Amino acid sequence: MDRLSLNIATTKKWTLRQAVEGAARAGLPAVGLWRDRVAEEGLASSAKLVRDAGLRVSSLCRGGFLTASDETGVRAALEDNRAAIVEAEALGTDALILVVGGLPEGDRDLAGARARVADRLADLAPFARDHGVRLVLEPLHPMYCADRAVVSTLEQALDLAAPHPAEEVAVVVDTFHVFWDPVLAGGIARAGRENRIASYQVCDFNLPIARDALLSRGMMGDGVVDFAAVTRMVAATGYSGDVEVEIFNAEIWDSPGDQVVATMSDRYRELVLPHLHST
Amino acid sequence: MDRLSLNIATTKKWTLRQAVEGAARAGLPAVGLWRDRVAEEGLASSAKLVRDAGLRVSSLCRGGFLTASDETGVRAALEDNRAAIVEAEALGTDALILVVGGLPEGDRDLAGARARVADRLADLAPFARDHGVRLVLEPLHPMYCADRAVVSTLEQALDLAAPHPAEEVAVVVDTFHVFWDPVLAGGIARAGRENRIASYQVCDFNLPIARDALLSRGMMGDGVVDFAAVTRMVAATGYSGDVEVEIFNAEIWDSPGDQVVATMSDRYRELVLPHLHST
Repeated sequence: MDRLSLNIATTKKWTLRQAVEGAARAGLPAVGLWRDRVAEEGLASSAKLVRDAGLRVSSLCRGGFLTASDETGVRAALEDNRAAIVEAEALGTDALILVVGGLPEGDRDLAGARARVADRLADLAPFARDHGVRLVLEPLHPMYCADRAVVSTLEQALDLAAPHPAEEVAVVVDTFHVFWDPVLAGGIARAGRENRIASYQVCDFNLPIARDALLSRGMMGDGVVDFAAVTRMVAATGYSGDVEVEIFNAEIWDSPGDQVVATMSDRYRELVLPHLHST
Repeated sequence: MDRLSLNIATTKKWTLRQAVEGAARAGLPAVGLWRDRVAEEGLASSAKLVRDAGLRVSSLCRGGFLTASDETGVRAALEDNRAAIVEAEALGTDALILVVGGLPEGDRDLAGARARVADRLADLAPFARDHGVRLVLEPLHPMYCADRAVVSTLEQALDLAAPHPAEEVAVVVDTFHVFWDPVLAGGIARAGRENRIASYQVCDFNLPIARDALLSRGMMGDGVVDFAAVTRMVAATGYSGDVEVEIFNAEIWDSPGDQVVATMSDRYRELVLPHLHST
């Protein structure tokens, strides 16, 4: 269990302090943090809590929302992402996850929005490098393309990362978002070759799609994702980092945190861990 | 308006006869038919109704569901698709749309399901050719990957079509399903080069995603699709076939058919037609 990380969005009702204590209690080595919970606890105090518990911070969620087309929006996005970079550094993680953002209101120009993501990455990469933080692009499932992330595939994320060194811009492989991709194996292999896999997140894809589509994520084993297949692809690249469990799901959020952590540990042991060592 | 076709699923409450009369009344040159409505009216009678109204049949929906892994399921799928091919021929259309099917119950092996689609295409292509009908692969939006169609992108559909002549296996470009694809322009250009665009279907992608995800399709202009962009890509290939409007949407289904046809004609004129002639 030395690579399993609790992304604290999975135990949404826990404060950062409760989540850190819960993860430590369950013997997990790491947590993935969210900025709202960090803000609530305070940045220095959050860093200290995690450190004192002997945990790693596997990632910070999240920066991004880079698609604004007006000057005010661009300025606000840059400011917010610089703040997120500073927070990641203070928390001791080099992985700042970016959800790049959807189309601005009333806009339908995906190519334009994608070009602006590239521009904002160029704006932010030097600042991130100076703080020892990687901008980690998260391809989101295409059902969120218009309203959340105009980056939908690993290949596309890698193309956006390409102008930058791997130390500055990387990608996260999240099973929920990419399992459907017919060229996933190639994308993961390329991400590995380019040393850009900053994070591996596991989470199932539940059917039917939840009424709030954001909450269709499920506990590993409850949905349609083939964790053996995707985990083997990731392992084959030599990825040796943490495996984060990040689930937005109303039923899981309503369950006691300790029970959720126990279930996710069991499912990880059963469905992910056996495939995590490249053969 | 000489290329606008009413897919009769758009006016779901109309019988085939009502839809044919409604399309003719509105001055449309073509209809896209569904097998359940054809069965209800009778095959010969359906063909006669369309012919007598002076309309073309732009496509027949649908064959497919080719992913069964057991012998009984495979046999049933082949039988059903052969029947659909015969029906397409009788109706005077060479385009049989295929929704390839999702994962069998409890199965998570996408690669296996995709391989079976390839096998079934090989089984069916000679029969289709003998009847002058093309098997038209429809890439479905990735949110339907597990339960409806393990073919999610145009590139993937073209790879499946590749072993077969373009007269036997082709693809449909449906804006709802493919608008998000970051390499869409390349996929459409390739489909054109390979002479495999059998149908262009227009329909918007509404947000938020409907409670029944199948019903998230919307009238052109009501959602997030950039019809100018996609239509220009299709037009640039030299595609000169019909443009079919196929919308599954509870609100539209509850509206009077003539009103739906009038609105779709207006939106087509405004949003699609100006971009339909390659420049």
